[in-house]
Order: sequence, then C-alpha cells, then structure tokens
Amino acid sequence: MNLEKLIKPKSIAVVGVSDKPGFGSGAAKGALGSRNADRAYFVHPKREELFGKKCYPSISDLPEVVDCVVLCTPAKTVNALVEEAGRCGVGAAVVFASGFSEEGTDEGKQMEEELKEIARRHDICVLGPNCFGMLNNVDKVNMWGGHTFWDLDDDSHGIAIIAQSGFISAEILNTDFFNVSYAISSGNGNIVTLEDFMEFVIEDESVSVVAIYLEGVRDAERFVSSLKRAAEIRKPVIILKSGRSVRGAISAASHTGSMAGSNKSYMSIFEKYGVIVADTLEEFMCLAQAVSVLNGTFATKKEYAVISFSGGESTLSADIAEEMGVELAEISEETKQEMKKYIPDFAQAKNPLDATTSLFRDDEKTIGLLKALNDDPAVGAITVGTNIKKDFDDTTASLCGAIAKAKARGVEKPVLAIPSLEGYRYRESRKILEDAGVPLMSSMGTSFQALRKLAKFAEYDYRERTLASAVPGAHGEKTVALSEFDSKAEMKANGVPVPAQAIARTEEELTEAVKAMKYPLVMKINSSEILHKTDAGGVKLNIMSEEEALAARKEIYANVAKSMPKASTDGILVQEMAPSGVEIIIGVTNDKQFGPMLLVGLGGVFVEVFKDAALYPAPLNKTEALAMLKELKSFKMLTGYRGSKPCDIEALTDMMVNIADYAYKHKDEVKEMDLNPVFVYPEGEGVCAVDALIVKYTD
Amino acid sequence: MNLEKLIKPKSIAVVGVSDKPGFGSGAAKGALGSRNADRAYFVHPKREELFGKKCYPSISDLPEVVDCVVLCTPAKTVNALVEEAGRCGVGAAVVFASGFSEEGTDEGKQMEEELKEIARRHDICVLGPNCFGMLNNVDKVNMWGGHTFWDLDDDSHGIAIIAQSGFISAEILNTDFFNVSYAISSGNGNIVTLEDFMEFVIEDESVSVVAIYLEGVRDAERFVSSLKRAAEIRKPVIILKSGRSVRGAISAASHTGSMAGSNKSYMSIFEKYGVIVADTLEEFMCLAQAVSVLNGTFATKKEYAVISFSGGESTLSADIAEEMGVELAEISEETKQEMKKYIPDFAQAKNPLDATTSLFRDDEKTIGLLKALNDDPAVGAITVGTNIKKDFDDTTASLCGAIAKAKARGVEKPVLAIPSLEGYRYRESRKILEDAGVPLMSSMGTSFQALRKLAKFAEYDYRERTLASAVPGAHGEKTVALSEFDSKAEMKANGVPVPAQAIARTEEELTEAVKAMKYPLVMKINSSEILHKTDAGGVKLNIMSEEEALAARKEIYANVAKSMPKASTDGILVQEMAPSGVEIIIGVTNDKQFGPMLLVGLGGVFVEVFKDAALYPAPLNKTEALAMLKELKSFKMLTGYRGSKPCDIEALTDMMVNIADYAYKHKDEVKEMDLNPVFVYPEGEGVCAVDALIVKYTD
Repeated sequence: MNLEKLIKPKSIAVVGVSDKPGFGSGAAKGALGSRNADRAYFVHPKREELFGKKCYPSISDLPEVVDCVVLCTPAKTVNALVEEAGRCGVGAAVVFASGFSEEGTDEGKQMEEELKEIARRHDICVLGPNCFGMLNNVDKVNMWGGHTFWDLDDDSHGIAIIAQSGFISAEILNTDFFNVSYAISSGNGNIVTLEDFMEFVIEDESVSVVAIYLEGVRDAERFVSSLKRAAEIRKPVIILKSGRSVRGAISAASHTGSMAGSNKSYMSIFEKYGVIVADTLEEFMCLAQAVSVLNGTFATKKEYAVISFSGGESTLSADIAEEMGVELAEISEETKQEMKKYIPDFAQAKNPLDATTSLFRDDEKTIGLLKALNDDPAVGAITVGTNIKKDFDDTTASLCGAIAKAKARGVEKPVLAIPSLEGYRYRESRKILEDAGVPLMSSMGTSFQALRKLAKFAEYDYRERTLASAVPGAHGEKTVALSEFDSKAEMKANGVPVPAQAIARTEEELTEAVKAMKYPLVMKINSSEILHKTDAGGVKLNIMSEEEALAARKEIYANVAKSMPKASTDGILVQEMAPSGVEIIIGVTNDKQFGPMLLVGLGGVFVEVFKDAALYPAPLNKTEALAMLKELKSFKMLTGYRGSKPCDIEALTDMMVNIADYAYKHKDEVKEMDLNPVFVYPEGEGVCAVDALIVKYTD
Repeated sequence: MNLEKLIKPKSIAVVGVSDKPGFGSGAAKGALGSRNADRAYFVHPKREELFGKKCYPSISDLPEVVDCVVLCTPAKTVNALVEEAGRCGVGAAVVFASGFSEEGTDEGKQMEEELKEIARRHDICVLGPNCFGMLNNVDKVNMWGGHTFWDLDDDSHGIAIIAQSGFISAEILNTDFFNVSYAISSGNGNIVTLEDFMEFVIEDESVSVVAIYLEGVRDAERFVSSLKRAAEIRKPVIILKSGRSVRGAISAASHTGSMAGSNKSYMSIFEKYGVIVADTLEEFMCLAQAVSVLNGTFATKKEYAVISFSGGESTLSADIAEEMGVELAEISEETKQEMKKYIPDFAQAKNPLDATTSLFRDDEKTIGLLKALNDDPAVGAITVGTNIKKDFDDTTASLCGAIAKAKARGVEKPVLAIPSLEGYRYRESRKILEDAGVPLMSSMGTSFQALRKLAKFAEYDYRERTLASAVPGAHGEKTVALSEFDSKAEMKANGVPVPAQAIARTEEELTEAVKAMKYPLVMKINSSEILHKTDAGGVKLNIMSEEEALAARKEIYANVAKSMPKASTDGILVQEMAPSGVEIIIGVTNDKQFGPMLLVGLGGVFVEVFKDAALYPAPLNKTEALAMLKELKSFKMLTGYRGSKPCDIEALTDMMVNIADYAYKHKDEVKEMDLNPVFVYPEGEGVCAVDALIVKYTD
C-alpha cells in the first residue's frame, strides 16, 4: 500500500471542524498550524467559516482534490464521507471516530467491513477508525485530533512513533522533549495496518529510530520481515509490548481486539531481530529519545564509565549498575593517572568516579576527564551525573556546556547525562546537551536499565543471526502424535542422534533386530492405544541377551493381554539403552503467529522448579544455540560442575540446530516436539535423544 | 546524648558569615529565615554587619549564650571555636568543614579526635564535621549550609530525613515537594552519631516517618534497638542503603570511611524489623512522601484496585503490577455491578479498570467508582492514573478534586495517584491530592515497586517477630573448630536431632557403643589433623554387625597409619547411618555487626547453582522459620514434589528455631555453624542433622 498521500499529504481537508473541544477543533487547529496551511481546507455543512478560514459545505465542493481528508464526525457518518471522498479521487483518510469493530458489536464490525470495502474499492489509505490521528513533523503536517500541544516548529530528530493506543500516543506527544518525526496513532489498524506503517517508517530516511507501543500483531509475516529489514539496515526499533502478563493480555484483547499472543514468543522474536525492549512508558521514551539524540553513535563495547560529583551518588551508581546488569569498565592505570590531573588530591581515580564538586564551573577539568575516559579502550560509553541545583543555574549551565564542548573537542564515544531524580531534567540543560548529541536520561533506576539495553543493542550483530522468518501457514486444529519409533526415525533422518531401534512383529524379526544392537536393550509394547506402557507391564529394561529378549517378548505380550486385552498392538519396539549423561530437555512449540520456537533446559528440577529454560525462534545457527545455553542459570552444569567433565556442547548445539531446522522445514505441519530426556556426554562423546515425540497437524 | 539544643535550638550564632556563595552565605540566609531570627546572631572577626544584621567579633562577644553555633569556617579553625563555644556554655555546634577523618590522613584523624575530646569535655553536641547541616521545619530553624532553596513556610508533614551524604541530602531538599520535618546531614557522624539522631526522631511526635540514606552503621546495638522501638510504636522507617554491590561497598568505604558490612545481613535485619527498603533515590523519596501523606492510613490487605482512563494504561498497569510483584484484588460481582453505574456501557468492570475518558469532568462518577472499590473487602488500597494533560488544566483539576472529594466522602482506604510519566506530576495536582491524603507518586515503574513495598509494610506485624537484638560482643580473630562428635553433641543438647554417636578408643568401647545403636553404622577416624578422612582411608560405611565394626576398626587404623603416619588420632567416631531424606543445608554466620544469621536452603544444586537460600537474623520463632522456607524458590520440593510425600516442616522449623537459639545464646563465641546435610523426612517422621560443624572464637 502506498502511504504517501496519508503520511505526506500536500493538501488536506478537515471534515466536521468545530470550535468546541474535541477532534473537530483539535484537527482544525492542527491544520491551521501545518506548513501547507493554504492547502488545508475546512468542511462543514452549515458554517461559513471557522477560526477565520472559509468552510466548504462538502468534500465534493472543495476547490481541489485533496490528498487526504480528516474526518472528525461521528461513526455513523464516516462510511458515506469516505465513499464521497473516494469518488472525488481523494487518496487517504484519517478517521477518529470510535464505535467500529473495537466495540465488539455486530453493527460495529459490519460498519468496519463496509469501510474496508470502500477503501479497497477507491484505493484510499484509511488511518483508523478509533485513532487519534497522525502528525508529520518532517513535512509539518498536523492531522492530530487528540489533545496535544505539539509545536511543529520543534525540529524533527528522527523518532517515528507508532502506537496501538491513542491515549498513550497522546501522553507521549504531551511530553515536551520528545524528538518526533512521525507520530501515528494506528487505531483499529485493519485497513492501513501497523505493518504498513512499520514498512514506511523503516525505509524513510528522516527516521533514525522506530518506537512502537505494541499490543498485538496481526500480520506476523510482514511484522517479522520489517524487523529483519530494520536489523539489516541497522535502524533501531524500540518496542514497549503490553499484554505481557496474563491480566495484561486479557486487558489488551478487550482494548483493541488484538490478540496479545504468547509474550515469550514475542520476546524471543525481539531477541533475534535485535529489538530494544522497554518495560515501562518512562523507559520507552527515555530509550527512544536517547537513541535519537545519539543519532547512530553507538558504543562498540558494553562497559560504561560513570562520573558523578558526590560520594553518595557514586556509590548508588555502583549498586544500581550491578542490580540492573550494567557493566562498568575496568579503566587502566594510565587512564587513572590522566584522570588525577583533573580531580582533587583527596579524590580517588576509579570507576564509578566521585569527581567531587570541585569540578563545578571548571570546564577544562570536566573536558579533560571526559577525554581521559574516552581514550581508554576499555570504555564503551560514559555517563555523567547532572543533578546539581533546584533550578537551571550557572553551575548547571557550566557543566552542561563543558560536556557539550568535550563532544566538540574529540570525545567521540557516547556520553549520556543522568540525573538521579527526574526533577533535575531542565529544558535548558536538555537543549545544551542534546544539541551536542548527549541524551538527558531519566532518573537513575530507569536510566541504568536503559543503559543495559543500549549496550545490548550496541553489541547486536544481525550477521550472527539466522533471520529467516518461520511464520507458519494456515492449518486446522486436528493433530496426530507420531509413535516413539516414528518420531525417533524422523529425528535420526534429520541428523539427531537417537539410540538404535527396530520394530519386531515376530520372534524372527526380534532375533534379527537384536543381532545388530549393543546390549543392554529396552523393549516396549508398540501401541498408540497404550499410553502408560509401564503400568500395563509393556516395558522391560536391561535385556542382556537374545534369550532374555525372547523371554521378555513373551512376558510383555502376556502382561498386555491381561491388563489391556482390547488394545491393538503393532509389535514390540526394541532399542539400545543409552548410557546416562547430563539430562537435557529440548522442545519445540509452534507459535501460531511466529512459528516454531526451540526450548532448551536441563531436566528435572531445573526446568520444573526453577523454570530455567531458554526459548528462541527456529531456524537458528550454532552461535544462537550456544547463546541459548549460556542464558540458562544452570549452564554451569554443562561446563564441568563439582569435578565432572565438561559436556559435549559442540554436539548439543549441533543437535539443537538440526531440531530447529527440522521444525523450520515443517513449520506448516509440526505442532510440537518433545525430546526428553536428551543425554549429553563428556566432550567428544556426543549426545543422544533417548525419547522423542512429534505431534503434527493433520489438516 | 541530649540533642535538644542541636535540633531545637532557641538561639543560634552563625560563625564565619559571608556574602560569597558557600556555607557562610547559605547558613547566614538560613538563620535570617528562621522563626527566631531575632535570636540568631552573626559572628565575623572583621565585618560590622551582613545582610543588614550586626556581626559580633567572636562567640564570646555574643549578647547571650546561644544554644547552638553554626561554624562555616575552614577545618583548621574549628577546634578552637568549639573550645571557645564550650567555655561560653554553648550546648551544640554544627560543623560544615571537611578535612577531618574522612580524608584518611593522620592529621585529619587527629583533628577529629581532638574535636571529639573537646565536645566530650564541654558536653557539646557536634553535628559533623563534613556535613551540610540541619534543618528543623517543625520549629523553623534553618542551619543548612548547602545550596538549597528550602522554604520554611512550607508545612511540615512529618518526614525526618537523615543522610550519610551531604550531596544526597541536598538533592532531596532541592526537590520542592518533600514533606520535611527534620533534615539532618550526619557527616562523619563520630560525635553525634546516626544512632543518636535515629533515637531522637523516632521518639519525636512531629515525625511520622523516618527516612535514612545509609552507607554504614557504627553502633549496631543502638541501630537495632532504634529499629525495634520504631517497629513497636509502628513508626515507618524507610532506608536507602548504598554500598549494596561489591563496587558500591568499596565506594562507600572510601566515601565516609564507614564500613558497608554485609549487604545480606543488612537486608535480613531490615526484613525482621519491618524496614521499608528503597532501591533508588527516586523510589526512596516516593516512598517517604507517600507514607507521610498517607499519615498512618495503611492498607489492611496487600491487594490493590487499579483505575486508569485508557486501555493502554490499564494493560500496562497489569503488566507492570505482575512484574513488580503487586497483587491485584479479585473484585466481587457485586462491586462490578456497582462500578457499571459509573462507566460507559462499552467499558468492562474489572481490575485493572479502563474507566475511559468519559469520567473526565464528571466528579460524581469518579467518586462513585472510588466508593464502590473502597467498599469491596477484597481491596486493600486503590490507585488512580492521573496523567491527563500537558499542563495542569481544568480536566486535571477536576479529576484531582474528585479524588479529594471521595476521600472526604467516606473512602477511607488508601488512595494513591500514579502518573505514567514523571512529567505529569504538577505542583497544583499535588496540592489538591496531598491535602486530601492522596500521595502523588512517581512514574509507573517506580510507583508499582513502591506499592509492593507499602503493601509489605502494611502486612508487617512486629508481634509475629522475635525482635531481641543479637549484636555480638567483642572478640579476637582466633578460632577453633569443634570436632564432628562435639559439634553434634552440642546440637543434640540443644534439641537438634542428630544420629546416635559415640567415640570408641578401644575395642571394648566399640563393642559397648554398637550395642546401643541401630545398624547400619558409619565409622570414621576421629582426628582434628585429618581433614580429608575418606582420602586417608579413615571412613567405613554400611557396617551391619559387631564383627564388621571390629574389622572396620582395624582397617581404618591400618589405612591411617599408612596414609598419614604422623597424624595424631583420638579413637573412632561410630554413629548410626541416617536414612536419606530431602537434603537441606542449615548454616549460621555471625555477622560482626548484627550477630548470628541463620541460612537455610536445599542441598546440592539448589544452593550452589541457583543461590536459592534464605537468610534471617537469630533468634527466630517458628513463624519466621516457615517464612524463610517459603522464601525459597525450591520450597515446593518440601511440600510434595512429583508424587513424593510432603516433608516434616514442623520438625524442620523446630530445628531451625533451636539452631538459631543456640547461635543467639552463644553469639559472643560462635563464628559459624554448618549443618550439612540435614535430612528431612515425610510428615511426622522428623529431621536429622547428619553432619555438623561449629567454629568458635577462642579469644
């Protein structure tokens, strides 16, 4: 869909202008403030003029065919107006009204279907319904209907915000420092969709960061390919995903009718495509603004140097850094010597640094200090505490100025200003700092959490990831479980080591089968109708010879005939008994939206009690598989715990890659897979999937 | 120490007044703004007057003996001035100057020792040195030297802030909304100490909440008894403890020379005495302000009802609540019916609630909603989203006013206002809300974290805790480890079940001993010089008869004679082999400041890999012991995991209480204890400490 006329209209008409508070007045004032205000028209059936501007009685009466109409009228009038606009050749429409599909009523749904049909028929891009509008700060077009005081004269600095909540987008726009290029309240998003907007802003050169408030995705394929594209052109995407909790998911579903989906699947998709994930609105805005101000200047290492001007601040920084997972750089002795030139004798050159208030109003010392840290190869980025006075005063101005000068004088690593309290974020400080490329962050807790995420983004490299999308095709709900034999055969055919196995339907087949196997063996009744085989007497372990095998066969059949006389059976599964190793669980669940996700964890209490498991979208490579293992708290059990030998992680990651590949190739059929247990042996001795279960869709 | 003249002086003299920025000017202006300004005097050796006020040449020349002198002069002049003040009969002094013990130099330390001696000799309360001063907003006395614009006309609302960092106390005072009664920058704290201030403010009736920025405690005994007193009179204490991390502890030590101590011990002491623990400065202030505004109105249950006015906000609230551990109330059907009267048809009555913007400017609806939730017994407290407009406008005023009216009209449960972004905290909103007892909190993430802590405080009941202090006496560093036999004998004598055991030095003693025991038995060489007994061939398991015991005895002696011929031995330890059970580790470490701390965790990977252990100060009762177990992620292993029987938690908590009692009684001698493993058997079958080690101080 070509969104040009919706996002960058050269002419617009506001239909249903009003002087009463509401969309009609907001959009009218917005139009008057737009750059092409002379090509912004007002439509009102009765009024002659509003705010000094002529009103035309209808869209058809306008003096030109506008690119976009902005409809401020109630739901019931919308479809006829879009129809009229379409007939006139208008290319886009913004629809504020609610009362469509989001209400969940048949009437609302039908009205939205009609609107969709009209839009398709006339090839009109429709934003909404049930939205707050669109604001383009690049071309200075204001089609915002919600209450906001956004000033289009503010420079645009590259944030494209797309929000699936009008209220949240309004909250963001009401914050005076946010560097918006485009703000889009996507509303119900069934005509022009979230994914349409993502594709547009990711390609737009005036956008340096895409920030999305996300409740749910409808077109997973395009969503994922947008993220892939963004990763490849290294355009940062920041997402605040709501509906993460059970209650939140219910709330999101009732809000815009979007399906929240599995939060874990979303998070693993975000991980793969390098999305920066925010947890709160405050952090979301802090991250988006910081990335926009940094404007492509990312750290090359994740370690920070932290400067503050008091012992208390410095100590708290160390604590919060550790608690938030921010790593502090080990600065060199050489750097410490250089730092000592700028701090008083009684201060210690270390990281985090208490530079003491003696640096206040002494620009050269601050600049010297920043340069010293900038020149240390261990430092990825530098933070400076900027919480000084109650109001913006000379001291604050001097400090902010010194930081800005340091940037101009060769401090090329990212510098971020952190107040310990929100109250210390002055508009004037922000101007000085951000004009120099230094973001003024949130209060310390939020900031340090954001620092960790920025460091993670800085280290993300899409070339190390397998970015192919595995979004599955449509299928029914019916499933069938492959037998243990078939599941393992399928795994073996795909490079996954399993114990040697055979189905023996006769004594002769059994004799034949055991000849090719190493003792001890296991024998199990092969029957899809007997689920609890041990209870039914259908399992014999530790068989050490052909004679024992033959005897076991008789015993199994006798037991089963007694315990489950009506169950149909299909011979006996005989297989080698794998020696035990470190027990691993590998599973696959096929997410309805995003496709197969590989799960890995250590067996027993690790997964069950501590929920210590990693999830990542298929397909994946060995680097990604290893990263999954390293994510586990129990990873150390694989590297030689309490004197045991290190495990064969090479073989384990090969196995993970093969299983994920299989799931990826069969993404349209596989519902779930369970390899439990998988035994991992010492280095060089491989792995073995002792049991396997594959469940497939049948329609 | 009587702090009356320091904290509530009726007359003061500022020595070293100045019109240049700094302590001399800050304190002079503060004195002029104090209520008893006519009894505030200026001292300057040369000046006749400053800011229109007469200057006296020295303290001795003052027209009256003042209660307190405020010294703004450099370090080197301080001691002589305090001496002079003492001779005149002055009762207190504030010393801003740095350059004393905190510099770590011999000269600085000696100067501080001298100052201490002078203070003692003249019975003068000295605040500082190296502090920012004291502000008493109850009696309107300003002896603050740091840059702050605090207005003494602000009402005092009961927060006493004590900060072991001048800069941090200044940051707090520079925030315009903080309801300060007393603000004390405690500086080096060697003369009048942190604990002196705590005792004063905990007893002061104008103080409703004590907020401490803490780097380290010097007098643990008095610190703990202050916390005990506060718990008993239910005066909330909020602590922001810095130096929690390794780097932070180093930083704190270099800052004020205070010992940070073990963070885990601090946190377990805070847990016992019901201290509200803040993680960041933002949260610290949010908590202190909230508690001050709530003014004793605490929830009786921990579950919240959450109101916001948008679907996005409501969804995010649910997510953040879950992530921060805030529990949402299950509201009743009756309440939902009542709520429906106030929200539009298309909105759903649930928790969290999206009340929709239709409630804006409709006070009665907001009041009705609040009353409905207030009347639901499942609700402990109510939060309302107050993020509306960019500036304080009619809508915001109306919403805040409606909330205030609801409080006046019978909503007696706590109501807390939460903006999603800091930027929405308007001074005007705060005034309306806080005058009605409704705190205006921080941004959503910080607020929800604070909500959890407020809920925890609301549920804290000191009567369920064992509040006796276990601060240990002085001892040397030399230790001795009791033998396994002696350790277990000591445990047995204190009610801890251990296997039957005996030391057999001869064949006869062995024959005698085994007669009284149940097989199987274990035999071990008894020697303090053989640490690795198994390696030395000094251990035999599974002994099933007297004959086997006698044979084992010979074998052990032969093995040891060969492997460690020089080691002296003292017979053989023979004991019953306890049947195995769920493996638990119980330990005691005697914290140098706070005394014995009991540690409990499940054996094996639980403690070692997942660090899943609970720590709590001795002594403790069964309720506290059970709470420790419930804190473990692996607690479910004790309640019947995978079909195993529930464990004998009664017996386990009895054992924990007995071990803690022993450690408490021997707090001056025990260095550490290790009971590992302890076997816990099914319900009714008890526990057994299979191995025990007690290490004691010998001097």
